[in-house]
Amino acid sequence: MLATMLNTLRQKGALVHNITNYVTVNDCANAILALGASPIMADDALEVEEIISICNALVINIGTLNTRTIESMILAGKKANALGKPVILDPVGAGASSLRTETVFRLLKEINFAIIRGNISEIKTVYAGSGSTKGVDADINDQLNTANQEEVFAFAKELSLKTGAVIAITGAIDLVTDGAQVSLIANGHPTMSQITGTGCMLSSMLGAYAGANPQDLYSATVAAVAHMGIAGERAAQLMSEKNTGTSTFRTDLIDGLSLIHEEDLERGLKVEQY
Amino acid sequence: MLATMLNTLRQKGALVHNITNYVTVNDCANAILALGASPIMADDALEVEEIISICNALVINIGTLNTRTIESMILAGKKANALGKPVILDPVGAGASSLRTETVFRLLKEINFAIIRGNISEIKTVYAGSGSTKGVDADINDQLNTANQEEVFAFAKELSLKTGAVIAITGAIDLVTDGAQVSLIANGHPTMSQITGTGCMLSSMLGAYAGANPQDLYSATVAAVAHMGIAGERAAQLMSEKNTGTSTFRTDLIDGLSLIHEEDLERGLKVEQY
Amino acid sequence: MLATMLNTLRQKGALVHNITNYVTVNDCANAILALGASPIMADDALEVEEIISICNALVINIGTLNTRTIESMILAGKKANALGKPVILDPVGAGASSLRTETVFRLLKEINFAIIRGNISEIKTVYAGSGSTKGVDADINDQLNTANQEEVFAFAKELSLKTGAVIAITGAIDLVTDGAQVSLIANGHPTMSQITGTGCMLSSMLGAYAGANPQDLYSATVAAVAHMGIAGERAAQLMSEKNTGTSTFRTDLIDGLSLIHEEDLERGLKVEQY
Repeated sequence: MLATMLNTLRQKGALVHNITNYVTVNDCANAILALGASPIMADDALEVEEIISICNALVINIGTLNTRTIESMILAGKKANALGKPVILDPVGAGASSLRTETVFRLLKEINFAIIRGNISEIKTVYAGSGSTKGVDADINDQLNTANQEEVFAFAKELSLKTGAVIAITGAIDLVTDGAQVSLIANGHPTMSQITGTGCMLSSMLGAYAGANPQDLYSATVAAVAHMGIAGERAAQLMSEKNTGTSTFRTDLIDGLSLIHEEDLERGLKVEQY
Repeated sequence: MLATMLNTLRQKGALVHNITNYVTVNDCANAILALGASPIMADDALEVEEIISICNALVINIGTLNTRTIESMILAGKKANALGKPVILDPVGAGASSLRTETVFRLLKEINFAIIRGNISEIKTVYAGSGSTKGVDADINDQLNTANQEEVFAFAKELSLKTGAVIAITGAIDLVTDGAQVSLIANGHPTMSQITGTGCMLSSMLGAYAGANPQDLYSATVAAVAHMGIAGERAAQLMSEKNTGTSTFRTDLIDGLSLIHEEDLERGLKVEQY
Repeated sequence: MLATMLNTLRQKGALVHNITNYVTVNDCANAILALGASPIMADDALEVEEIISICNALVINIGTLNTRTIESMILAGKKANALGKPVILDPVGAGASSLRTETVFRLLKEINFAIIRGNISEIKTVYAGSGSTKGVDADINDQLNTANQEEVFAFAKELSLKTGAVIAITGAIDLVTDGAQVSLIANGHPTMSQITGTGCMLSSMLGAYAGANPQDLYSATVAAVAHMGIAGERAAQLMSEKNTGTSTFRTDLIDGLSLIHEEDLERGLKVEQY
């Protein structure tokens, strides 16, 4: 089922419009290409509506946010909504500055997102802007674990129902929910946090997966998260065999994105359904 | 003859001013350095005229185009023309949005380009803005092949004569023309399209080749195109030997740019003259 | 002593705010992560004061300078000064355009820098804007060597005393001074100048080293410079063993940043004190 998502992506391809940051943009483009999809990076207000019109999905990533591109994000997001194309939000650093937090709140108000992906701290900020009234329990700290699992499930499901988006909270264990089902994905490796771009690349990969599989965004999200995690495990294995450092790890990680196919995904999956 | 172009570049070096996109800019800088030349990236209207004044060539690349840098492109291009320095145009995504198409038309009107490089679809858009009146035959689709070869030759030659620029149409087979001569270059490998930046890097390499060989822009262009293609073949060979993925391919490709010297270029060339 | 700087950094970590260029920003983020520190790239005037408030150091790098981010540099720099956090300046290309030179002069007037790092030509431009009256002797050309060593020492010390910053002049031989002591560091390899980003990465590493060791900025600077040089030597060694090119060199260089620990730094150091 999950592997089908990748199979469809590799068969059909997808054209993914990214409005993203300048730190990891090259990695994002290469990650999308590694999946057999195609990236377009375009952020000027004068062209984003035309660009999303020829694409299958839009990824909005607020790293290195600036006032010039916020308007472009709104324009592109609304156009994508009007055309029924999935929009992915990566709220990078939400909570770290008022500009980022308020921009996330504005984006949530003006755009309907198909998928929202971030770490638990960023997703808590998104929650605060979603109009939810319960508030996030203080016990949900910055790590998903067995002690707070039930609370995190409830919080993520509520956010999903409130926003209509599939929610992906990534960390040591990744969680994906559509408000009803929850998947916990145990793939991945700690070294992934010692390079920049794993989160951003995953969000751009979600654009590719969702663009090719718009009819099942939940499965597309779980498959993309697992795909990235399995690529990380493969790179970590190579790192320990070759005694290499973090830059080779990054090369091997993106290599893995391109080399993993249906059967590798099926074999490598560590997913539990709740 | 072609290998002389590389030899001169490696001996003399060249300082190449790039106004380019933020997706592949790091790859472009490293590609220029790999040839023994030096890159400067500068895009603010307040400094571009001074920067081009100390450089040997200017590369204008419209990927991630924005209204701020269009004026810088015009200023730098006019200054380069006034100083007699070659200007290279990479019309990334021309035809995909009005902003890009109209910017290309404006650039063509205000700047004399020495070399224009793009895929066939982008070059057709450039043609539409060149003031040519014949129109491009609908038979020229997005692939150069034996069936449409004569038409593509005629179209590219006309564009070259109209603009005064050497035209490079890159794809599975690459074409270079100065309006009289045509070269077809069969070097390269399909995996080059599975990473971002091969087109942009080639355009920046044209800046280095043209900056060191301003007296023979046609040969400089053919040599640069072949250099990139041979590096791609070398990287593909390594990929099949090592069972690596697209990110290692990219590293090996740039490695090849730095490792290929006069004799490798001579030995590897797959060029036919028409 | 120097190795202690690295040890403290690896133990404590540091959060480093970078306002930098879009050419090498990804390398800078990965270099910071390779040291066990964390990068934040943020350049909008609306958020830079909040961002530096949660960080341990600020790195200002003027490559791809534009008028939008100059104000952000000033705001962030002043805030960092007010909060007592070290600010590092990388005057990329100072002297190459009036915009860059005048911006450096303005930054020097409005911000107190903890460390200033550049090549000798850039540092001479910084000197011209430091209010020093002696003028730099014309004999100080663009290379530090035995013939001009005394003059360069005097010039660098004077600049350090005038600005209150540790001065790092990098080249074939690197010089670091706090106005009293001078260290010459002979680590490094010529291939480091055949890739983009070694200077920018070093400046970002200075942010990490200074952020973790604010009480001894001189030693932190010498350690960071040596760390980069030793990583370069290691990458050059691998390059000659594997017959690889400049892109693999870059991967191996960043690998080295992550793999070098206290004992490697101690063993590899080629530092002379004056």
